Amino acid sequence: MQEDELVESIEKAFRRMGSPGRSKKLRIGMGDDAALLTPLPEHETILTCDWFLEGMHFLRERHPAEAVGWKCLARATSDIAAMGGAPRCFLLSLALPPSCAGRWLDGFLSGLRRAARRLGLELAGGDTSRHRQILVSITVIGEVRRGEAVLRSGARPGDLIWVSGRLGEAQLGMELLPGRWTQVPGIRRLLRKHLYPEPRIELGQWLSKRRLATAMIDVSDGLSTDLGHLCEASDAGARVYADKLPLPRVPDLGSGRRFDLLALALDGGDDYELLFTVPWRLAHLVPREYRGVSLTKIGEITRATGMLLVEDGNRTRPIVPRGWDPFRR
Amino acid sequence: MQEDELVESIEKAFRRMGSPGRSKKLRIGMGDDAALLTPLPEHETILTCDWFLEGMHFLRERHPAEAVGWKCLARATSDIAAMGGAPRCFLLSLALPPSCAGRWLDGFLSGLRRAARRLGLELAGGDTSRHRQILVSITVIGEVRRGEAVLRSGARPGDLIWVSGRLGEAQLGMELLPGRWTQVPGIRRLLRKHLYPEPRIELGQWLSKRRLATAMIDVSDGLSTDLGHLCEASDAGARVYADKLPLPRVPDLGSGRRFDLLALALDGGDDYELLFTVPWRLAHLVPREYRGVSLTKIGEITRATGMLLVEDGNRTRPIVPRGWDPFRR
Repeated sequence: MQEDELVESIEKAFRRMGSPGRSKKLRIGMGDDAALLTPLPEHETILTCDWFLEGMHFLRERHPAEAVGWKCLARATSDIAAMGGAPRCFLLSLALPPSCAGRWLDGFLSGLRRAARRLGLELAGGDTSRHRQILVSITVIGEVRRGEAVLRSGARPGDLIWVSGRLGEAQLGMELLPGRWTQVPGIRRLLRKHLYPEPRIELGQWLSKRRLATAMIDVSDGLSTDLGHLCEASDAGARVYADKLPLPRVPDLGSGRRFDLLALALDGGDDYELLFTVPWRLAHLVPREYRGVSLTKIGEITRATGMLLVEDGNRTRPIVPRGWDPFRR
Repeated sequence: MQEDELVESIEKAFRRMGSPGRSKKLRIGMGDDAALLTPLPEHETILTCDWFLEGMHFLRERHPAEAVGWKCLARATSDIAAMGGAPRCFLLSLALPPSCAGRWLDGFLSGLRRAARRLGLELAGGDTSRHRQILVSITVIGEVRRGEAVLRSGARPGDLIWVSGRLGEAQLGMELLPGRWTQVPGIRRLLRKHLYPEPRIELGQWLSKRRLATAMIDVSDGLSTDLGHLCEASDAGARVYADKLPLPRVPDLGSGRRFDLLALALDGGDDYELLFTVPWRLAHLVPREYRGVSLTKIGEITRATGMLLVEDGNRTRPIVPRGWDPFRR
């Protein structure tokens, strides 16, 4: 394989995509020195990038190529959701062993294309190389109306804390993936959550447009870590109620195997749910669910820094960031 | 080391940079879910990304960490130059073995910071991870006034072909790097060209603003490959005069070692010079040098596709793309 052939495969996969707005958004996409994007008037450009590395973020033997393609794009786009923005286009940096240029690449591109269509993203360009392991770096470009971006730093003492969906289910899905569980009813949902996460784009945009959220972050590294980031950026603390947390729903595995659901909800990574704060006086405007995604009030922002977990009514213990950190593995 | 500490090192290195326009260009840089950039009115956004991988693009034992930091940013920014754009900000995706988090990282960040200052780029964000080898993926964002971007596809038959600087010197520098040559006078220039390339930002902008160039590309993979890309995009061919090519200047090594200078100029990669075409009637407006960088007319665009090298007055032979291809190594 030559580099030109690899680029051609990628281009072909996305040409078939035939997104109707293609020429409008991107004047020049792949095939020139760089891509040219015409910004929307009165908008800011959102920029984010994410690694997705074999051996660190996925395993070639365990994770289907389609899921690798989907997830690398979905998780990078989750950062756009967390700003309340609209995804626009992405750049793909892909390095492969030559042996992966056939079937693996086809599967990867198929998952990537499905995610791009679902998320409203066009492929704008990228770079390819050879490497012993599969390396992916994704840059996503989004847009948000000027002044509407929701930062991590806007939470104020007294604001209430919400989270979308359920926490810890992706981690649970990962732990169940290698096993014989895939046939157990209800398990597919957990595997999907691990393999094909859905960033909460619409919810993020709704919260930013209504100006409900004072601060927002996506739960990618685990609640204990990401709530910590939000608190630090906002120079505040948080109090979280254990009995309010949307714990994972575990199907009966018929094996007596037990899970620490609270630990999963606090420290499990990869959920790509949105964690956001809303001022007390606007709390009644937050619905119980938004487009099928549940919204759960789990605590409040405090003046005192540090995070506390309230259990059994009033016992408290500190929440220690124990979420995903590539350097701790 | 934790991920937070690595991010902190990177932030600190760039905080010291203290670029005056900082807050104006980027509303939010590192430390939130994503960066927020306010686009200039009447401009298009230029997006490009490039791998810089240990073992493929550099060797840890051979290339100083400072040079790795400089070059990864310089080569990605060269694509902005090739569109005639102004560099604005960049995202750094960095994966490291923990053993590189000390001295190596300091050197890398020092080179990266020097390049960023030289190129007028702010660090907007990025991602970090752990890996057995050093992996770098750089995304550079630039801007160009609407309609002024110079594409690869605009060359017309009869246009004359120019190249900046000299071709093949970076390749020569690479070949001389491991040796005992570094003390030979004149060799430092070649090593610099290999280790610390300077993308031709000002030249690219000058050509686009004056609307002199009909097509442009940076010579990163070698003339034979990159001229091929320009011809293919423009649906045309080219005729190049061997005796016009700006061959590398080789200092006397006092060793009888000889180099095929023509092959170096045709196929040597990594020069990051600009290759551009100018209509015949505007040719007199192209100076012999621009801000100290020589500009050399090397041939012309032809209606017939394919590239020909003219030697000894009128003998011709096809130019075969033999430049850098990561999959051919």
